[in-house]
Amino acid sequence: MSFEPINVFDYEARAEQVLHKDHWDFIDAGDFDELTVRRNRTAFDAIALRPKFMLDVQSRDLSTKVLGQEISFPVLLAPCAGQGRCHEEAEKGAASAATSLGTIYCINFNSRYSIEDVIQTAGGPLWFQLYHQTTSGTETMVRRAEDAGYSALCVTVDVPFPTRKERDIRNAYRPGGDPGTRSPAGAIRHLEWDPPIQWKDIEWLRSLTKMPIIIKGLRTAEDARLCVEHGVEAVYVSNHGGRQVDGTLSAIETLPEIVDAVNGQAEIYLDSGVRRGADVLRALALGADAVFVGRPFLWGLAVNGKEGVREVLAFLRDELDRAMGFCGLTSIDQIDRSVVSLPGEAGWIQGAY
Amino acid sequence: MSFEPINVFDYEARAEQVLHKDHWDFIDAGDFDELTVRRNRTAFDAIALRPKFMLDVQSRDLSTKVLGQEISFPVLLAPCAGQGRCHEEAEKGAASAATSLGTIYCINFNSRYSIEDVIQTAGGPLWFQLYHQTTSGTETMVRRAEDAGYSALCVTVDVPFPTRKERDIRNAYRPGGDPGTRSPAGAIRHLEWDPPIQWKDIEWLRSLTKMPIIIKGLRTAEDARLCVEHGVEAVYVSNHGGRQVDGTLSAIETLPEIVDAVNGQAEIYLDSGVRRGADVLRALALGADAVFVGRPFLWGLAVNGKEGVREVLAFLRDELDRAMGFCGLTSIDQIDRSVVSLPGEAGWIQGAY
Amino acid sequence: MSFEPINVFDYEARAEQVLHKDHWDFIDAGDFDELTVRRNRTAFDAIALRPKFMLDVQSRDLSTKVLGQEISFPVLLAPCAGQGRCHEEAEKGAASAATSLGTIYCINFNSRYSIEDVIQTAGGPLWFQLYHQTTSGTETMVRRAEDAGYSALCVTVDVPFPTRKERDIRNAYRPGGDPGTRSPAGAIRHLEWDPPIQWKDIEWLRSLTKMPIIIKGLRTAEDARLCVEHGVEAVYVSNHGGRQVDGTLSAIETLPEIVDAVNGQAEIYLDSGVRRGADVLRALALGADAVFVGRPFLWGLAVNGKEGVREVLAFLRDELDRAMGFCGLTSIDQIDRSVVSLPGEAGWIQGAY
Amino acid sequence: MSFEPINVFDYEARAEQVLHKDHWDFIDAGDFDELTVRRNRTAFDAIALRPKFMLDVQSRDLSTKVLGQEISFPVLLAPCAGQGRCHEEAEKGAASAATSLGTIYCINFNSRYSIEDVIQTAGGPLWFQLYHQTTSGTETMVRRAEDAGYSALCVTVDVPFPTRKERDIRNAYRPGGDPGTRSPAGAIRHLEWDPPIQWKDIEWLRSLTKMPIIIKGLRTAEDARLCVEHGVEAVYVSNHGGRQVDGTLSAIETLPEIVDAVNGQAEIYLDSGVRRGADVLRALALGADAVFVGRPFLWGLAVNGKEGVREVLAFLRDELDRAMGFCGLTSIDQIDRSVVSLPGEAGWIQGAY
Repeated sequence: MSFEPINVFDYEARAEQVLHKDHWDFIDAGDFDELTVRRNRTAFDAIALRPKFMLDVQSRDLSTKVLGQEISFPVLLAPCAGQGRCHEEAEKGAASAATSLGTIYCINFNSRYSIEDVIQTAGGPLWFQLYHQTTSGTETMVRRAEDAGYSALCVTVDVPFPTRKERDIRNAYRPGGDPGTRSPAGAIRHLEWDPPIQWKDIEWLRSLTKMPIIIKGLRTAEDARLCVEHGVEAVYVSNHGGRQVDGTLSAIETLPEIVDAVNGQAEIYLDSGVRRGADVLRALALGADAVFVGRPFLWGLAVNGKEGVREVLAFLRDELDRAMGFCGLTSIDQIDRSVVSLPGEAGWIQGAY
Repeated sequence: MSFEPINVFDYEARAEQVLHKDHWDFIDAGDFDELTVRRNRTAFDAIALRPKFMLDVQSRDLSTKVLGQEISFPVLLAPCAGQGRCHEEAEKGAASAATSLGTIYCINFNSRYSIEDVIQTAGGPLWFQLYHQTTSGTETMVRRAEDAGYSALCVTVDVPFPTRKERDIRNAYRPGGDPGTRSPAGAIRHLEWDPPIQWKDIEWLRSLTKMPIIIKGLRTAEDARLCVEHGVEAVYVSNHGGRQVDGTLSAIETLPEIVDAVNGQAEIYLDSGVRRGADVLRALALGADAVFVGRPFLWGLAVNGKEGVREVLAFLRDELDRAMGFCGLTSIDQIDRSVVSLPGEAGWIQGAY
Repeated sequence: MSFEPINVFDYEARAEQVLHKDHWDFIDAGDFDELTVRRNRTAFDAIALRPKFMLDVQSRDLSTKVLGQEISFPVLLAPCAGQGRCHEEAEKGAASAATSLGTIYCINFNSRYSIEDVIQTAGGPLWFQLYHQTTSGTETMVRRAEDAGYSALCVTVDVPFPTRKERDIRNAYRPGGDPGTRSPAGAIRHLEWDPPIQWKDIEWLRSLTKMPIIIKGLRTAEDARLCVEHGVEAVYVSNHGGRQVDGTLSAIETLPEIVDAVNGQAEIYLDSGVRRGADVLRALALGADAVFVGRPFLWGLAVNGKEGVREVLAFLRDELDRAMGFCGLTSIDQIDRSVVSLPGEAGWIQGAY
Repeated sequence: MSFEPINVFDYEARAEQVLHKDHWDFIDAGDFDELTVRRNRTAFDAIALRPKFMLDVQSRDLSTKVLGQEISFPVLLAPCAGQGRCHEEAEKGAASAATSLGTIYCINFNSRYSIEDVIQTAGGPLWFQLYHQTTSGTETMVRRAEDAGYSALCVTVDVPFPTRKERDIRNAYRPGGDPGTRSPAGAIRHLEWDPPIQWKDIEWLRSLTKMPIIIKGLRTAEDARLCVEHGVEAVYVSNHGGRQVDGTLSAIETLPEIVDAVNGQAEIYLDSGVRRGADVLRALALGADAVFVGRPFLWGLAVNGKEGVREVLAFLRDELDRAMGFCGLTSIDQIDRSVVSLPGEAGWIQGAY
């Protein structure tokens, strides 16, 4: 049967067909009971758009800047493990897709291809994601990334221990160097992990590189304030797609408190649950500067390599474009809180959603 | 099996049987994930009626006036594409049904029959719906409508771009001149549309016609205030039955803020989700002067042409009549906010609905 | 298979088996979409009990007084049409069951057996329910009831028009003289009904009888205040089991506003949704003096005549007895608002129910 | 098929397979409609964790003290009937499992093995649960428990009458001396029970023993205040796993009001619904000093005796360990209200959960 996708969900369904079940589970599963995976979606659906009409929206410009770099639309590719099992092109394909559409790919720490090969293939700009494991290892990797031309350092902080994605455990899934899944089976006996990154390490990272620093994985205003105090350039709100710490709020629910806490002193990104262009608009309306997507681009990669990733990104871009136009917006900087209505605000009927 | 309908939903079920699947989908589908289609119904169901008894309600009068025209009950027929594929009688049948019951039919922009033929067949009063596409085209159509005897101009403003009704896209549905469905397949590549109507065009429309102007498709207080500022005679609250801009509030949820914003300076109508006479009462209790129905009359048309439309309208009229009587009301002008109870008001138990 | 019921729901399931489908539907169905039927149950389930322990609850007394008459527990039998189709014993059996357990049966207006025969068979006290239809008819019936020994007059006021129980309409159900179902099929064409009871008729009813007057079918504080102004002895909160006016709040949700409005100047009863002894306790905690049950006793009657009704009543009595004991209560007059917790009050977690 | 459990729910599923259906029902069922059984779980799921990162959490200590006794983690085993039908090892196995992991087993009143044998097998510390039935019986048992070395007296107060677990009644389940199920079939005819414990009995219990007294089964602030007034050492919040008094709040929902009422004057424990280590953290964040689990350890016992109980406890311990680490906590005394977010608090979107 022919594959004629018309949205990101079509890629999801197709990816489930083409991937080995274990690898599908690795991508799809969340921590423990997967409450947060589901909540990441229901929360977006519950946020109502407020369209405005009869404005001149024929000419729209989705471009914006993140960390000083111009991008053609505010959807970036999140650092994700397992790209090599999705498609031979892996990080090379995904990075090239992002570059070709004028946005940014953030390479994951355990790339199938060397970070030098990926940036050479894709061009740029690319960002580099770090799991801090050992002092020497981190120092080596950060210097290599900067030398290779990566332009920002994205430090993932929400993996002090490996995830408990129970589907992976049941599958005895062994993804190789993926730091999220070292504990492939049985009871939780060995929680030891390399010393996780701590706040005091930020200063040391500063000493290693001139790349701006992004802290990825925050869920609370408290941690966002600490980011500001430590002078990081960007706060990346994420619950790892529900893969780390089940039972939290969705990322979009935590965004407002983090926006308040950051108070304009750092850029703010978000991932976890973005599946429609309207979700991008919702996140930006609540204060994000840009969003990342993870699973959606893995689905594109699994189905059709670089071209699949391009199409997934194009869907999100074009849906965002429509959604902005419907809301009377012609540029990213026009997006503000008035674009959305939250439960409890004027008009909302409890139980209608 | 015989067809003995007792409510509007019976017509819905029958229409699904008699229509080609693609055309059924065209009528039934909503934008993207169809969240708003569902919400249009759940929100009505969540609004509780407050019956009052032991009043003299034997003699009830459902007549009212819209734009100075007397109608026998406050349910009008919304401008809808695709009537020609429902039944040979198409706009002629539907308009005649409305006229014969003493209410108003608003002809859609792309009628199967000429607007002159329809008004000649149906008598009147009829209203004329406009999709503004080109200056010359609009001018021609507005003058033709006025000359033919149409008595109000209903300008649809929530289609700056074509819809993304994904079921239509999967069906590669091509409804001909229907402006809502020009993009029948694949990715969202070409969002260009003829320059959509803008606020500045209202003055120009005024110069073309003496017909009162209705703005159809509003979802926000902001746009309602602009309507008032531009002096339009009526504000028509609608989310196009969930067919334009998925993920908004239901129409009935946005009604209160729009009523507040209009503050009595224009008439207010509503469609999107009305399926029971009690829904008409709910909308009027929250401040609408009248409601329109779209899909329900298409179901009637598909099943039995003019007679089907008449019966659908009669169900809504007679259910409204009952609902009013149960609430101690004998005329439309007695309907006020005390007729309904919203979630969060006295007595409501969260989770009971 | 043997029938060993342990609760009211077992009788419900059995009654569905033993009754002709049309008559089951007549009993089970609600008005239109049956939203209120469902809500009558969900609202009770959402009200949390607050048990209290380590009190002396070994000796409990469920007796109380309604309109000066001692009853052994505060559950009465509501006036219900269709008893004759449930069981040959009909009103005689149900009334005898109530009397034998020390509570009150309120005979319905269109009893299978004469009201004189019923009270002779059952003993008393019994109450008499009135549908006001014509002046002479009402006068005759009220005098007959008083002469026969009925001790209260329960005037049903929520049937200004026949119900639209759509299942009955589809079944073309013809229950004979039952005033609730005179319109057995097709569209709503003939809403005319004998002039319904009006507030001004209360004074006239007073002139006919010395029986205390109960007004049955109220849903609002407004109507409750009018009851007080007209000096009725009791206000009977009911939505007719969801059979009249779909889309209202549940009866238990409207109880608090009515209790406030009555302010101790009349007794207050409630039906619609009571299925467990705990529901009786909930209703009394929110201010009712007693509850009635309708469908539950019809189920008992259908399954096993008088004995079935007795057992249904006994389940409710004994469950109430337990629930009171668990809440540290040994008499009806100890029941107060502190026995229940409503959504939004201390501790409630939204979404947990 | 091999059994490789990775969480408590796996033990639940396995236990249902290995147990006779009647005994499974005895363990699984709740009172009446089992509303509270379900609510015990949904309420926990609705409480969001607030993870905090980049802190030094490599070294974590889950030990704490209850009634002056050090335990290695704050999960104790609740007194449960029916252990003998789960596994030959019964109370000996379960108690030994708790002791071997450094926590406390509270033996149930009707143990299969003598309380002396159990403590001799398991070592200690163990606690003793009391159903007060007769003065002489209670006196004998309390003295025996103290003599045998039990170190606390847990008085269950929420069984003034037997439960109405309807599944047990349908099964005509006869568990022997289990005080919760003496009424195995039919209607509720005989509610008499031995005089239940009353507040005045606390002083008498004091005179019998030097063991600290725990009151188990409270649901309200009112009862908690009475505990404080009577000087008990610990308040054990529980709804008996939904087995006593259906239709209450979940235990976790009642915890905050009880914590407020106790105001630090007694220790506070909780059971009913704990299935994940994160639930332990939620309960402690809302003010509990420790939690108990009932059904989970019965599942472990049914599947694999002492070893099964050990593994169930280990899952809860290790999941708690992870959850604490993710929230930046390295010791039990660091857990406070900031660890969780409740519905209605900042960021929560109604309907997202």
